[in-house]
Amino acid sequence: MKTTAALALAAACITLSAPAAAQFAKAEDAIKYRQGALFVMGQHFGRIGAMANGKAPFDAKAAQENADVVANMARLPWTGFGPGTDKGAPTKAKPDLWNEPAKFKEHSEKLETETAKLAAAAKTGNLDSLKVAFGDAAKSCKACHDAYRAR
Amino acid sequence: MKTTAALALAAACITLSAPAAAQFAKAEDAIKYRQGALFVMGQHFGRIGAMANGKAPFDAKAAQENADVVANMARLPWTGFGPGTDKGAPTKAKPDLWNEPAKFKEHSEKLETETAKLAAAAKTGNLDSLKVAFGDAAKSCKACHDAYRAR
Repeated sequence: MKTTAALALAAACITLSAPAAAQFAKAEDAIKYRQGALFVMGQHFGRIGAMANGKAPFDAKAAQENADVVANMARLPWTGFGPGTDKGAPTKAKPDLWNEPAKFKEHSEKLETETAKLAAAAKTGNLDSLKVAFGDAAKSCKACHDAYRAR
Repeated sequence: MKTTAALALAAACITLSAPAAAQFAKAEDAIKYRQGALFVMGQHFGRIGAMANGKAPFDAKAAQENADVVANMARLPWTGFGPGTDKGAPTKAKPDLWNEPAKFKEHSEKLETETAKLAAAAKTGNLDSLKVAFGDAAKSCKACHDAYRAR
């Protein structure tokens, strides 16, 4: 199993580590970057959730603006999870994240897909479509958090 | 002077405070939001700066991608500076920021304008245009930091 994990990590390094290393001056920056991007995304996502769950009045324009931010932000955090960024600043990311790069990539790509769908649903101005897309995107957040974020 | 500041703040509250209050559950969230957005923006801005200053090879595609992120991010942080968010989490924002809302708004709008120009310059693929636009945007960052960010 250790060999498999090491091979998987090595494979991921080919695509991930060079740019990640080049992009951040230090691990702390990568950690702050991913946390910042995820937090900003979460705030806008929560505003859509409030509408989807009937806790805030549905405002089609606001939903669309928030969903566009969410879809844009969803593309960003992943470079901040490069090798060597498991420490350097407080982080809830579990070590498994770096042991299972292919699975983590699947999660991140799923989020990008679901948030793109959310933005498309928001553009229709239909609350029911928004609710469905919000639920799917929320499941994708949760699946990755359950797997790779410590409580 | 105090009356003027209070009137200016009251005027700003009409346009700023209601949505800001509605958008963030607590001041800490607003502070983390604005810091996250600014940090993410700063990382991408720094990558353009490295190219503009000859510290990294010019990569037109990367410059364009980074500039698009910068321009998008530049629109976000400002709702995180609503009234009551001068404390609630560690922040370097000076009290003057809330005493001079019109001036702060000028700074934020200037950044949005300059980063939009930066994105346009990056699209041309011309390094000299990018350097000029980067310099102008950097001046706009600095002016606001000098006025409202503690060292």
